[in-house]
Amino acid sequence: MSTQDNWYIEHFGPTGSAIGYRIEAKLDEVQSPFQKIEIYRTTDWGNLMLIDGAVMLTSRDNFLYHEMISHPALFTHPEPKRVVIIGGGDCGTLREVLKHPGVARATQCDIDEQVTRMAEKYFPELCESNADPRAELLFDDGVAYMANCPAGSVDVVIVDSTDPVGPAEGLFNKAFYASCFRALKDDGILVQQSESPLAQLELIRAMRAEMAKAGFSSFKTLPFPQPCYPTGWWSATLARKGRDFGFREAAAEAKPFATRYYTAALHRGALATPPFMAEALEGVRG
Amino acid sequence: MSTQDNWYIEHFGPTGSAIGYRIEAKLDEVQSPFQKIEIYRTTDWGNLMLIDGAVMLTSRDNFLYHEMISHPALFTHPEPKRVVIIGGGDCGTLREVLKHPGVARATQCDIDEQVTRMAEKYFPELCESNADPRAELLFDDGVAYMANCPAGSVDVVIVDSTDPVGPAEGLFNKAFYASCFRALKDDGILVQQSESPLAQLELIRAMRAEMAKAGFSSFKTLPFPQPCYPTGWWSATLARKGRDFGFREAAAEAKPFATRYYTAALHRGALATPPFMAEALEGVRG
Repeated sequence: MSTQDNWYIEHFGPTGSAIGYRIEAKLDEVQSPFQKIEIYRTTDWGNLMLIDGAVMLTSRDNFLYHEMISHPALFTHPEPKRVVIIGGGDCGTLREVLKHPGVARATQCDIDEQVTRMAEKYFPELCESNADPRAELLFDDGVAYMANCPAGSVDVVIVDSTDPVGPAEGLFNKAFYASCFRALKDDGILVQQSESPLAQLELIRAMRAEMAKAGFSSFKTLPFPQPCYPTGWWSATLARKGRDFGFREAAAEAKPFATRYYTAALHRGALATPPFMAEALEGVRG
Repeated sequence: MSTQDNWYIEHFGPTGSAIGYRIEAKLDEVQSPFQKIEIYRTTDWGNLMLIDGAVMLTSRDNFLYHEMISHPALFTHPEPKRVVIIGGGDCGTLREVLKHPGVARATQCDIDEQVTRMAEKYFPELCESNADPRAELLFDDGVAYMANCPAGSVDVVIVDSTDPVGPAEGLFNKAFYASCFRALKDDGILVQQSESPLAQLELIRAMRAEMAKAGFSSFKTLPFPQPCYPTGWWSATLARKGRDFGFREAAAEAKPFATRYYTAALHRGALATPPFMAEALEGVRG
Protein backbone atom coordinates (compact mmCIF):
# COMPACT_ATOMS: atom_id res chain seq x y z
CA MET A 1 0.00 0.00 0.00
CA SER A 2 1.49 3.32 -0.97
CA THR A 3 0.51 6.78 -2.08
CA GLN A 4 2.94 8.02 -4.69
CA ASP A 5 2.75 11.06 -6.88
CA ASN A 6 -0.93 11.57 -7.55
CA TRP A 7 -1.98 7.93 -7.75
CA TYR A 8 -3.18 5.69 -4.96
CA ILE A 9 -2.26 2.06 -5.61
CA GLU A 10 -3.59 -0.86 -3.57
CA HIS A 11 -1.20 -3.81 -3.86
CA PHE A 12 -3.41 -6.80 -3.04
CA GLY A 13 -1.30 -9.72 -1.82
CA PRO A 14 -3.83 -12.57 -2.11
CA THR A 15 -4.33 -12.09 -5.84
CA GLY A 16 -0.88 -10.72 -6.70
CA SER A 17 -2.61 -7.88 -8.51
CA ALA A 18 -2.96 -4.17 -7.91
CA ILE A 19 -5.63 -1.59 -8.52
CA GLY A 20 -5.45 2.15 -8.23
CA TYR A 21 -6.80 5.60 -8.93
CA ARG A 22 -5.53 9.00 -9.95
CA ILE A 23 -6.08 11.26 -6.96
CA GLU A 24 -6.85 14.96 -6.81
CA ALA A 25 -6.87 15.46 -3.06
CA LYS A 26 -7.06 13.72 0.27
CA LEU A 27 -10.30 14.82 1.89
CA ASP A 28 -10.34 13.13 5.26
CA GLU A 29 -8.88 10.49 7.53
CA VAL A 30 -10.05 8.98 10.79
CA GLN A 31 -8.65 6.22 12.94
CA SER A 32 -11.64 4.46 14.50
CA PRO A 33 -11.28 1.88 17.29
CA PHE A 34 -11.35 -0.76 14.52
CA GLN A 35 -9.63 0.56 11.43
CA LYS A 36 -8.24 3.53 9.53
CA ILE A 37 -10.70 5.17 7.14
CA GLU A 38 -9.45 7.53 4.45
CA ILE A 39 -11.32 9.55 1.84
CA TYR A 40 -9.80 10.82 -1.40
CA ARG A 41 -11.21 12.77 -4.31
CA THR A 42 -10.21 11.11 -7.59
CA THR A 43 -10.01 12.59 -11.08
CA ASP A 44 -12.45 10.17 -12.70
CA TRP A 45 -14.21 8.09 -10.04
CA GLY A 46 -15.65 10.65 -7.65
CA ASN A 47 -14.83 10.05 -4.02
CA LEU A 48 -12.87 7.03 -2.87
CA MET A 49 -13.03 5.35 0.55
CA LEU A 50 -10.15 3.24 1.85
CA ILE A 51 -10.27 1.07 4.96
CA ASP A 52 -6.84 0.08 6.22
CA GLY A 53 -5.53 0.87 2.74
CA ALA A 54 -8.03 -1.36 0.92
CA VAL A 55 -10.35 0.25 -1.61
CA MET A 56 -13.91 0.02 -0.28
CA LEU A 57 -15.88 2.04 -2.78
CA THR A 58 -15.89 4.86 -5.28
CA SER A 59 -18.80 7.15 -6.13
CA ARG A 60 -18.75 5.99 -9.73
CA ASP A 61 -18.89 2.22 -9.55
CA ASN A 62 -20.36 1.22 -6.17
CA PHE A 63 -23.80 0.74 -7.77
CA LEU A 64 -22.60 -2.53 -9.27
CA TYR A 65 -21.78 -4.10 -5.90
CA HIS A 66 -24.70 -2.66 -3.99
CA GLU A 67 -27.25 -3.77 -6.57
CA MET A 68 -25.77 -7.25 -6.95
CA ILE A 69 -25.39 -7.98 -3.24
CA SER A 70 -29.06 -7.04 -2.72
CA HIS A 71 -31.48 -7.61 -5.57
CA PRO A 72 -30.64 -11.18 -6.64
CA ALA A 73 -31.21 -12.41 -3.06
CA LEU A 74 -34.36 -10.33 -2.56
CA PHE A 75 -35.89 -11.47 -5.85
CA THR A 76 -34.95 -15.08 -5.08
CA HIS A 77 -36.74 -15.05 -1.71
CA PRO A 78 -40.50 -15.53 -2.22
CA GLU A 79 -41.51 -12.60 0.00
CA PRO A 80 -38.67 -10.88 1.88
CA LYS A 81 -39.97 -8.80 4.78
CA ARG A 82 -37.26 -8.93 7.43
CA VAL A 83 -33.71 -8.26 6.24
CA VAL A 84 -30.48 -8.05 8.24
CA ILE A 85 -27.32 -6.50 6.82
CA ILE A 86 -24.09 -7.37 8.63
CA GLY A 87 -21.45 -4.77 7.83
CA GLY A 88 -22.62 -2.46 5.06
CA GLY A 89 -21.69 0.67 7.01
CA ASP A 90 -21.62 2.83 3.88
CA CYS A 91 -25.43 2.30 3.76
CA GLY A 92 -25.52 1.59 0.02
CA THR A 93 -26.85 -1.93 0.53
CA LEU A 94 -29.49 -0.67 2.93
CA ARG A 95 -30.64 1.80 0.30
CA GLU A 96 -31.06 -0.96 -2.30
CA VAL A 97 -32.88 -3.26 0.14
CA LEU A 98 -35.37 -0.52 1.06
CA LYS A 99 -36.25 -0.05 -2.60
CA HIS A 100 -38.32 -3.24 -2.19
CA PRO A 101 -41.74 -2.09 -0.99
CA GLY A 102 -42.41 -5.46 0.66
CA VAL A 103 -39.49 -5.13 3.07
CA ALA A 104 -40.97 -4.28 6.47
CA ARG A 105 -37.77 -3.88 8.44
CA ALA A 106 -34.09 -3.77 7.54
CA THR A 107 -31.41 -3.73 10.20
CA GLN A 108 -27.88 -2.70 9.34
CA CYS A 109 -25.34 -3.81 11.94
CA ASP A 110 -21.83 -2.52 11.32
CA ILE A 111 -19.21 -2.63 14.03
CA ASP A 112 -17.76 0.73 13.04
CA GLU A 113 -19.93 3.85 13.31
CA GLN A 114 -17.19 5.92 11.67
CA VAL A 115 -17.79 4.19 8.34
CA THR A 116 -21.36 5.46 8.33
CA ARG A 117 -20.33 8.94 9.48
CA MET A 118 -17.84 9.14 6.60
CA ALA A 119 -20.44 7.83 4.14
CA GLU A 120 -22.95 10.46 5.28
CA LYS A 121 -20.38 13.13 4.52
CA TYR A 122 -18.71 11.87 1.34
CA PHE A 123 -21.28 9.49 -0.17
CA PRO A 124 -24.56 11.12 0.90
CA GLU A 125 -26.43 9.51 -2.00
CA LEU A 126 -25.88 6.10 -0.36
CA CYS A 127 -27.41 7.31 2.89
CA GLU A 128 -30.60 8.72 1.46
CA SER A 129 -32.75 5.94 2.95
CA ASN A 130 -31.22 6.01 6.42
CA ALA A 131 -34.21 7.94 7.75
CA ASP A 132 -36.70 5.46 6.27
CA PRO A 133 -38.91 4.30 9.17
CA ARG A 134 -38.22 0.68 8.17
CA ALA A 135 -34.46 1.17 8.65
CA GLU A 136 -32.59 0.37 11.85
CA LEU A 137 -28.93 1.34 12.08
CA LEU A 138 -26.88 -0.41 14.77
CA PHE A 139 -23.20 -0.01 15.47
CA ASP A 140 -22.33 -3.28 17.10
CA ASP A 141 -20.64 -6.63 16.63
CA GLY A 142 -22.37 -8.49 13.79
CA VAL A 143 -21.30 -11.88 15.13
CA ALA A 144 -23.03 -11.18 18.44
CA TYR A 145 -26.04 -9.64 16.72
CA MET A 146 -26.67 -12.78 14.65
CA ALA A 147 -26.04 -15.06 17.64
CA ASN A 148 -28.78 -13.20 19.55
CA CYS A 149 -31.30 -13.04 16.69
CA PRO A 150 -34.51 -14.96 17.49
CA ALA A 151 -34.60 -18.30 15.67
CA GLY A 152 -36.58 -18.30 12.42
CA SER A 153 -37.08 -14.55 12.46
CA VAL A 154 -35.21 -13.38 9.37
CA ASP A 155 -35.86 -13.72 5.64
CA VAL A 156 -32.56 -12.52 4.20
CA VAL A 157 -29.15 -12.03 5.82
CA ILE A 158 -26.73 -9.96 3.72
CA VAL A 159 -23.09 -10.09 4.78
CA ASP A 160 -21.58 -6.95 3.27
CA SER A 161 -18.17 -7.03 4.86
CA THR A 162 -14.54 -6.20 4.22
CA ASP A 163 -12.04 -8.92 3.29
CA PRO A 164 -11.79 -11.92 5.64
CA VAL A 165 -9.03 -10.40 7.76
CA GLY A 166 -9.21 -7.98 10.68
CA PRO A 167 -12.68 -6.98 11.94
CA ALA A 168 -14.46 -9.14 9.32
CA GLU A 169 -12.57 -12.37 10.02
CA GLY A 170 -15.33 -13.74 12.25
CA LEU A 171 -17.86 -13.44 9.41
CA PHE A 172 -16.35 -16.27 7.37
CA ASN A 173 -16.62 -19.33 9.63
CA LYS A 174 -19.00 -22.07 10.74
CA ALA A 175 -19.94 -20.44 14.07
CA PHE A 176 -21.19 -17.27 12.38
CA TYR A 177 -22.96 -19.19 9.62
CA ALA A 178 -24.66 -21.38 12.25
CA SER A 179 -26.13 -18.23 13.82
CA CYS A 180 -27.36 -17.13 10.40
CA PHE A 181 -28.83 -20.58 9.73
CA ARG A 182 -30.68 -20.50 13.02
CA ALA A 183 -31.98 -16.95 12.56
CA LEU A 184 -33.24 -17.62 9.04
CA LYS A 185 -36.68 -19.02 8.32
CA ASP A 186 -36.85 -22.23 6.29
CA ASP A 187 -37.08 -20.35 3.01
CA GLY A 188 -34.48 -17.79 4.11
CA ILE A 189 -31.37 -16.78 2.20
CA LEU A 190 -27.86 -15.93 3.31
CA VAL A 191 -25.86 -13.87 0.83
CA GLN A 192 -22.27 -12.82 1.35
CA GLN A 193 -19.70 -10.95 -0.71
CA SER A 194 -17.22 -13.63 -1.78
CA GLU A 195 -14.25 -11.88 -3.37
CA SER A 196 -12.90 -12.50 -6.89
CA PRO A 197 -14.46 -15.39 -8.82
CA LEU A 198 -11.32 -15.74 -10.92
CA ALA A 199 -8.53 -15.26 -8.42
CA GLN A 200 -10.07 -16.42 -5.15
CA LEU A 201 -11.99 -19.58 -5.96
CA GLU A 202 -10.28 -21.37 -3.08
CA LEU A 203 -11.76 -18.82 -0.69
CA ILE A 204 -15.22 -19.33 -2.18
CA ARG A 205 -14.82 -23.11 -1.80
CA ALA A 206 -13.78 -22.63 1.83
CA MET A 207 -16.73 -20.31 2.52
CA ARG A 208 -19.19 -22.78 1.04
CA ALA A 209 -17.63 -25.60 3.06
CA GLU A 210 -18.08 -23.62 6.29
CA MET A 211 -21.65 -22.74 5.31
CA ALA A 212 -22.32 -26.43 4.66
CA LYS A 213 -20.97 -27.35 8.10
CA ALA A 214 -23.51 -24.90 9.54
CA GLY A 215 -26.37 -26.66 7.79
CA PHE A 216 -26.78 -24.80 4.50
CA SER A 217 -27.22 -27.24 1.65
CA SER A 218 -27.53 -25.31 -1.59
CA PHE A 219 -25.20 -22.64 -2.90
CA LYS A 220 -24.86 -20.33 -5.86
CA THR A 221 -22.08 -17.85 -6.58
CA LEU A 222 -23.06 -14.93 -8.80
CA PRO A 223 -20.21 -13.04 -10.48
CA PHE A 224 -20.46 -9.37 -11.38
CA PRO A 225 -18.13 -6.58 -12.51
CA GLN A 226 -16.69 -4.35 -9.78
CA PRO A 227 -13.78 -2.25 -11.05
CA CYS A 228 -12.72 -0.96 -7.63
CA TYR A 229 -12.02 -4.42 -6.18
CA PRO A 230 -9.00 -6.61 -7.00
CA THR A 231 -9.26 -8.10 -10.54
CA GLY A 232 -12.31 -5.90 -11.25
CA TRP A 233 -14.55 -8.94 -11.02
CA TRP A 234 -16.35 -9.82 -7.82
CA SER A 235 -18.99 -12.22 -6.54
CA ALA A 236 -21.86 -12.78 -4.14
CA THR A 237 -22.46 -16.27 -2.78
CA LEU A 238 -26.02 -17.25 -1.87
CA ALA A 239 -26.80 -20.12 0.51
CA ARG A 240 -30.16 -21.71 1.31
CA LYS A 241 -31.65 -24.55 3.29
CA GLY A 242 -32.06 -27.01 0.45
CA ARG A 243 -33.95 -24.75 -1.93
CA ASP A 244 -32.91 -23.71 -5.40
CA PHE A 245 -32.06 -20.32 -6.85
CA GLY A 246 -34.88 -19.78 -9.28
CA PHE A 247 -36.07 -16.21 -8.80
CA ARG A 248 -39.26 -14.16 -9.12
CA GLU A 249 -38.58 -13.21 -12.73
CA ALA A 250 -41.89 -11.47 -13.36
CA ALA A 251 -41.46 -9.37 -10.23
CA ALA A 252 -37.90 -8.50 -11.22
CA GLU A 253 -39.06 -7.53 -14.73
CA ALA A 254 -41.74 -5.30 -13.19
CA LYS A 255 -39.73 -3.91 -10.30
CA PRO A 256 -41.10 -0.52 -9.19
CA PHE A 257 -37.67 1.11 -8.82
CA ALA A 258 -34.74 2.04 -11.04
CA THR A 259 -31.40 0.26 -11.14
CA ARG A 260 -28.30 0.98 -13.19
CA TYR A 261 -26.97 -2.59 -13.54
CA TYR A 262 -29.43 -5.12 -12.14
CA THR A 263 -32.23 -6.35 -14.36
CA ALA A 264 -34.07 -9.67 -14.57
CA ALA A 265 -32.04 -10.50 -17.68
CA LEU A 266 -28.76 -9.65 -15.95
CA HIS A 267 -29.87 -11.80 -13.01
CA ARG A 268 -30.43 -14.73 -15.37
CA GLY A 269 -27.01 -14.05 -16.87
CA ALA A 270 -25.36 -14.06 -13.43
CA LEU A 271 -26.92 -17.46 -12.71
CA ALA A 272 -25.08 -18.87 -15.74
CA THR A 273 -21.92 -20.06 -14.03
CA PRO A 274 -18.86 -20.02 -16.33
CA PRO A 275 -17.39 -23.51 -16.85
CA PHE A 276 -14.09 -22.70 -15.12
CA MET A 277 -15.98 -21.65 -11.97
CA ALA A 278 -18.32 -24.65 -12.04
CA GLU A 279 -15.32 -26.92 -12.34
CA ALA A 280 -13.46 -25.30 -9.45
CA LEU A 281 -16.50 -25.29 -7.17
CA GLU A 282 -17.48 -28.85 -8.08
CA GLY A 283 -17.64 -31.22 -5.15
CA VAL A 284 -19.21 -28.56 -2.96
CA ARG A 285 -22.95 -29.08 -3.11
CA GLY A 286 -24.80 -26.75 -5.49
CA MET B 1 4.02 3.55 -16.47
CA SER B 2 6.68 2.44 -14.02
CA THR B 3 8.33 -0.65 -12.63
CA GLN B 4 8.93 -0.29 -8.91
CA ASP B 5 9.97 -2.84 -6.36
CA ASN B 6 8.47 -6.11 -7.54
CA TRP B 7 5.18 -4.77 -8.92
CA TYR B 8 4.44 -3.58 -12.42
CA ILE B 9 1.77 -0.88 -12.41
CA GLU B 10 0.06 0.44 -15.55
CA HIS B 11 -1.31 3.92 -14.89
CA PHE B 12 -4.06 4.30 -17.51
CA GLY B 13 -4.74 7.95 -18.21
CA PRO B 14 -8.08 7.70 -20.07
CA THR B 15 -9.84 6.00 -17.15
CA GLY B 16 -7.83 7.54 -14.29
CA SER B 17 -7.34 4.04 -12.93
CA ALA B 18 -4.38 1.72 -12.60
CA ILE B 19 -3.87 -2.01 -12.77
CA GLY B 20 -0.82 -4.05 -11.90
CA TYR B 21 0.85 -7.32 -11.08
CA ARG B 22 3.40 -8.68 -8.67
CA ILE B 23 6.41 -9.64 -10.75
CA GLU B 24 8.95 -12.42 -10.27
CA ALA B 25 11.24 -11.70 -13.20
CA LYS B 26 11.57 -9.88 -16.49
CA LEU B 27 11.88 -12.55 -19.16
CA ASP B 28 12.33 -10.64 -22.38
CA GLU B 29 12.11 -7.34 -24.21
CA VAL B 30 12.17 -6.44 -27.88
CA GLN B 31 11.76 -3.13 -29.67
CA SER B 32 10.01 -3.90 -32.94
CA PRO B 33 9.66 -1.32 -35.74
CA PHE B 34 6.24 -0.54 -34.25
CA GLN B 35 6.34 -0.88 -30.49
CA LYS B 36 8.19 -2.15 -27.42
CA ILE B 37 7.15 -5.63 -26.30
CA GLU B 38 8.07 -6.83 -22.80
CA ILE B 39 7.47 -10.17 -21.09
CA TYR B 40 7.39 -10.66 -17.31
CA ARG B 41 6.78 -13.68 -15.15
CA THR B 42 4.26 -12.84 -12.41
CA THR B 43 3.68 -14.52 -9.06
CA ASP B 44 0.00 -15.35 -9.66
CA TRP B 45 -0.93 -14.70 -13.29
CA GLY B 46 1.64 -16.67 -15.28
CA ASN B 47 3.39 -14.70 -18.00
CA LEU B 48 2.50 -11.09 -18.74
CA MET B 49 2.94 -9.27 -22.07
CA LEU B 50 3.21 -5.50 -22.22
CA ILE B 51 3.14 -3.43 -25.40
CA ASP B 52 4.48 0.09 -24.93
CA GLY B 53 3.81 -0.35 -21.22
CA ALA B 54 0.16 -1.37 -21.62
CA VAL B 55 -0.88 -4.79 -20.31
CA MET B 56 -1.84 -6.95 -23.30
CA LEU B 57 -2.44 -10.33 -21.70
CA THR B 58 -1.60 -12.71 -18.92
CA SER B 59 -1.53 -16.51 -19.09
CA ARG B 60 -4.23 -16.75 -16.46
CA ASP B 61 -7.02 -14.55 -17.71
CA ASN B 62 -6.65 -14.13 -21.49
CA PHE B 63 -9.25 -16.85 -22.07
CA LEU B 64 -11.99 -14.40 -21.14
CA TYR B 65 -11.10 -11.93 -23.87
CA HIS B 66 -10.25 -14.47 -26.54
CA GLU B 67 -13.47 -16.41 -26.07
CA MET B 68 -15.67 -13.31 -25.93
CA ILE B 69 -14.15 -11.57 -28.97
CA SER B 70 -14.71 -14.75 -31.01
CA HIS B 71 -17.59 -17.02 -30.10
CA PRO B 72 -20.47 -14.53 -29.77
CA ALA B 73 -19.79 -13.24 -33.32
CA LEU B 74 -19.28 -16.72 -34.77
CA PHE B 75 -22.46 -18.08 -33.18
CA THR B 76 -24.39 -14.99 -34.31
CA HIS B 77 -23.38 -15.43 -37.95
CA PRO B 78 -25.56 -18.11 -39.61
CA GLU B 79 -22.64 -20.02 -41.13
CA PRO B 80 -19.21 -18.41 -40.74
CA LYS B 81 -16.71 -19.84 -43.21
CA ARG B 82 -14.33 -17.00 -44.00
CA VAL B 83 -12.96 -15.08 -41.03
CA VAL B 84 -10.43 -12.24 -40.95
CA ILE B 85 -8.68 -11.18 -37.74
CA ILE B 86 -7.06 -7.75 -37.80
CA GLY B 87 -4.42 -7.53 -35.09
CA GLY B 88 -4.59 -10.54 -32.79
CA GLY B 89 -0.85 -11.19 -33.04
CA ASP B 90 -0.80 -13.31 -29.90
CA CYS B 91 -2.84 -15.87 -31.90
CA GLY B 92 -5.33 -16.55 -29.08
CA THR B 93 -8.27 -15.28 -31.14
CA LEU B 94 -7.18 -17.38 -34.11
CA ARG B 95 -7.16 -20.45 -31.88
CA GLU B 96 -10.74 -19.79 -30.73
CA VAL B 97 -11.98 -19.12 -34.29
CA LEU B 98 -10.49 -22.38 -35.55
CA LYS B 99 -12.38 -24.33 -32.89
CA HIS B 100 -15.42 -23.85 -35.16
CA PRO B 101 -15.37 -26.79 -37.60
CA GLY B 102 -17.33 -24.81 -40.19
CA VAL B 103 -14.63 -22.16 -40.57
CA ALA B 104 -12.86 -22.87 -43.86
CA ARG B 105 -10.22 -20.14 -43.70
CA ALA B 106 -9.09 -17.71 -41.04
CA THR B 107 -6.57 -14.99 -41.83
CA GLN B 108 -4.77 -13.19 -39.04
CA CYS B 109 -3.21 -9.92 -40.17
CA ASP B 110 -1.08 -8.23 -37.51
CA ILE B 111 1.31 -5.46 -38.39
CA ASP B 112 3.94 -6.65 -35.93
CA GLU B 113 5.50 -10.08 -36.42
CA GLN B 114 7.36 -9.71 -33.13
CA VAL B 115 4.10 -10.03 -31.17
CA THR B 116 3.56 -13.48 -32.66
CA ARG B 117 7.20 -14.48 -32.11
CA MET B 118 6.90 -13.51 -28.44
CA ALA B 119 3.57 -15.35 -28.11
CA GLU B 120 5.09 -18.51 -29.61
CA LYS B 121 7.79 -18.39 -26.96
CA TYR B 122 5.88 -17.24 -23.85
CA PHE B 123 2.25 -18.15 -24.60
CA PRO B 124 2.68 -21.31 -26.70
CA GLU B 125 -0.81 -22.54 -25.76
CA LEU B 126 -2.29 -19.63 -27.72
CA CYS B 127 -0.36 -20.61 -30.83
CA GLU B 128 -1.36 -24.25 -30.92
CA SER B 129 -3.58 -23.79 -33.99
CA ASN B 130 -1.10 -21.74 -36.01
CA ALA B 131 -0.22 -24.78 -38.12
CA ASP B 132 -3.87 -25.56 -38.86
CA PRO B 133 -4.16 -25.75 -42.68
CA ARG B 134 -7.11 -23.32 -42.47
CA ALA B 135 -4.94 -20.67 -40.81
CA GLU B 136 -3.13 -17.90 -42.67
CA LEU B 137 -0.76 -15.67 -40.70
CA LEU B 138 0.16 -12.36 -42.32
CA PHE B 139 2.35 -9.63 -40.91
CA ASP B 140 1.09 -6.57 -42.68
CA ASP B 141 -0.96 -3.41 -42.34
CA GLY B 142 -4.53 -4.36 -41.42
CA VAL B 143 -5.95 -1.16 -42.89
CA ALA B 144 -4.44 -1.99 -46.29
CA TYR B 145 -5.44 -5.65 -46.01
CA MET B 146 -9.11 -4.78 -45.48
CA ALA B 147 -9.01 -2.13 -48.24
CA ASN B 148 -7.78 -4.79 -50.69
CA CYS B 149 -10.18 -7.55 -49.61
CA PRO B 150 -12.56 -8.58 -52.43
CA ALA B 151 -16.04 -7.14 -51.92
CA GLY B 152 -18.51 -9.51 -50.28
CA SER B 153 -15.89 -12.14 -49.54
CA VAL B 154 -15.80 -12.26 -45.74
CA ASP B 155 -18.26 -13.57 -43.13
CA VAL B 156 -16.72 -12.21 -39.94
CA VAL B 157 -14.09 -9.50 -39.38
CA ILE B 158 -12.62 -9.50 -35.86
CA VAL B 159 -10.65 -6.40 -34.89
CA ASP B 160 -8.44 -7.57 -32.04
CA SER B 161 -6.28 -4.51 -31.60
CA THR B 162 -4.47 -2.45 -29.00
CA ASP B 163 -5.95 0.81 -27.69
CA PRO B 164 -6.88 3.43 -30.30
CA VAL B 165 -3.52 5.17 -30.20
CA GLY B 166 -0.26 4.37 -32.03
CA PRO B 167 -0.32 1.49 -34.54
CA ALA B 168 -4.03 0.76 -33.90
CA GLU B 169 -5.29 4.31 -34.39
CA GLY B 170 -6.34 3.66 -38.00
CA LEU B 171 -8.63 0.82 -36.91
CA PHE B 172 -11.17 3.09 -35.23
CA ASN B 173 -12.40 5.33 -38.04
CA LYS B 174 -14.89 5.48 -40.91
CA ALA B 175 -12.34 4.72 -43.65
CA PHE B 176 -11.36 1.41 -42.08
CA TYR B 177 -14.94 0.49 -41.24
CA ALA B 178 -15.95 1.23 -44.84
CA SER B 179 -13.39 -1.32 -46.03
CA CYS B 180 -14.84 -3.85 -43.58
CA PHE B 181 -18.38 -3.06 -44.74
CA ARG B 182 -17.39 -3.62 -48.35
CA ALA B 183 -15.51 -6.84 -47.64
CA LEU B 184 -18.35 -8.35 -45.62
CA LYS B 185 -21.21 -10.27 -47.17
CA ASP B 186 -24.74 -9.03 -46.47
CA ASP B 187 -25.08 -11.23 -43.41
CA GLY B 188 -21.53 -10.52 -42.28
CA ILE B 189 -20.46 -9.29 -38.86
CA LEU B 190 -17.79 -6.87 -37.73
CA VAL B 191 -16.68 -7.28 -34.12
CA GLN B 192 -14.13 -5.07 -32.42
CA GLN B 193 -12.71 -4.82 -28.92
CA SER B 194 -14.24 -1.65 -27.52
CA GLU B 195 -12.51 -0.89 -24.19
CA SER B 196 -14.23 -0.45 -20.82
CA PRO B 197 -18.04 -0.42 -20.84
CA LEU B 198 -18.08 1.57 -17.60
CA ALA B 199 -15.26 4.06 -18.07
CA GLN B 200 -15.09 4.50 -21.84
CA LEU B 201 -18.68 4.72 -23.04
CA GLU B 202 -17.83 7.86 -24.99
CA LEU B 203 -15.31 5.88 -27.02
CA ILE B 204 -17.91 3.17 -27.70
CA ARG B 205 -20.37 5.85 -28.83
CA ALA B 206 -17.72 7.33 -31.13
CA MET B 207 -16.83 3.90 -32.57
CA ARG B 208 -20.48 3.15 -33.30
CA ALA B 209 -20.92 6.55 -34.91
CA GLU B 210 -17.96 5.91 -37.24
CA MET B 211 -19.30 2.43 -38.03
CA ALA B 212 -22.67 3.97 -38.84
CA LYS B 213 -21.04 6.47 -41.21
CA ALA B 214 -19.51 3.48 -43.02
CA GLY B 215 -22.94 1.91 -43.54
CA PHE B 216 -23.39 -0.42 -40.56
CA SER B 217 -26.87 -0.05 -39.14
CA SER B 218 -27.21 -2.31 -36.12
CA PHE B 219 -24.91 -2.52 -33.13
CA LYS B 220 -24.55 -4.47 -29.93
CA THR B 221 -21.91 -4.06 -27.24
CA LEU B 222 -21.25 -7.15 -25.14
CA PRO B 223 -19.51 -6.60 -21.79
CA PHE B 224 -17.32 -9.26 -20.19
CA PRO B 225 -14.84 -9.49 -17.31
CA GLN B 226 -11.18 -9.00 -18.18
CA PRO B 227 -9.03 -8.43 -15.08
CA CYS B 228 -5.88 -7.47 -16.97
CA TYR B 229 -7.45 -4.46 -18.73
CA PRO B 230 -8.24 -1.12 -17.11
CA THR B 231 -11.29 -1.37 -14.78
CA GLY B 232 -11.28 -5.18 -15.16
CA TRP B 233 -14.37 -4.96 -17.32
CA TRP B 234 -14.14 -4.92 -21.10
CA SER B 235 -16.37 -5.11 -24.15
CA ALA B 236 -16.74 -6.27 -27.73
CA THR B 237 -18.91 -4.26 -30.10
CA LEU B 238 -20.65 -6.10 -32.93
CA ALA B 239 -21.92 -4.32 -36.05
CA ARG B 240 -24.11 -5.67 -38.84
CA LYS B 241 -25.83 -4.55 -42.01
CA GLY B 242 -29.30 -4.14 -40.57
CA ARG B 243 -29.64 -7.56 -38.99
CA ASP B 244 -30.20 -8.36 -35.35
CA PHE B 245 -28.03 -10.16 -32.81
CA GLY B 246 -30.05 -13.26 -32.15
CA PHE B 247 -27.63 -16.17 -32.18
CA ARG B 248 -27.58 -19.88 -32.98
CA GLU B 249 -28.44 -20.91 -29.44
CA ALA B 250 -28.82 -24.63 -30.16
CA ALA B 251 -25.47 -24.72 -31.92
CA ALA B 252 -23.84 -22.83 -29.03
CA GLU B 253 -25.39 -25.25 -26.52
CA ALA B 254 -24.04 -28.19 -28.52
CA LYS B 255 -20.67 -26.72 -29.47
CA PRO B 256 -18.14 -29.48 -30.15
CA PHE B 257 -15.30 -27.79 -28.24
CA ALA B 258 -14.50 -26.75 -24.69
CA THR B 259 -14.51 -23.20 -23.39
CA ARG B 260 -13.74 -21.85 -19.93
CA TYR B 261 -16.05 -18.80 -19.92
CA TYR B 262 -18.25 -18.76 -23.02
CA THR B 263 -21.48 -20.73 -22.98
CA ALA B 264 -24.83 -20.16 -24.67
CA ALA B 265 -26.21 -18.98 -21.31
CA LEU B 266 -23.33 -16.55 -20.80
CA HIS B 267 -23.88 -15.29 -24.36
CA ARG B 268 -27.54 -14.61 -23.53
CA GLY B 269 -26.37 -12.84 -20.37
CA ALA B 270 -23.92 -10.68 -22.32
CA LEU B 271 -26.77 -9.60 -24.63
CA ALA B 272 -28.61 -8.19 -21.59
CA THR B 273 -27.32 -4.64 -21.69
CA PRO B 274 -27.19 -3.00 -18.24
CA PRO B 275 -29.47 0.06 -18.01
CA PHE B 276 -26.61 2.53 -17.51
CA MET B 277 -25.00 1.33 -20.75
CA ALA B 278 -28.25 1.36 -22.70
CA GLU B 279 -28.86 4.91 -21.54
CA ALA B 280 -25.38 6.11 -22.47
CA LEU B 281 -25.48 4.45 -25.89
CA GLU B 282 -29.02 5.62 -26.62
CA GLY B 283 -29.34 7.75 -29.69
CA VAL B 284 -26.87 5.58 -31.55
CA ARG B 285 -28.89 3.05 -33.51
CA GLY B 286 -29.12 -0.39 -31.89
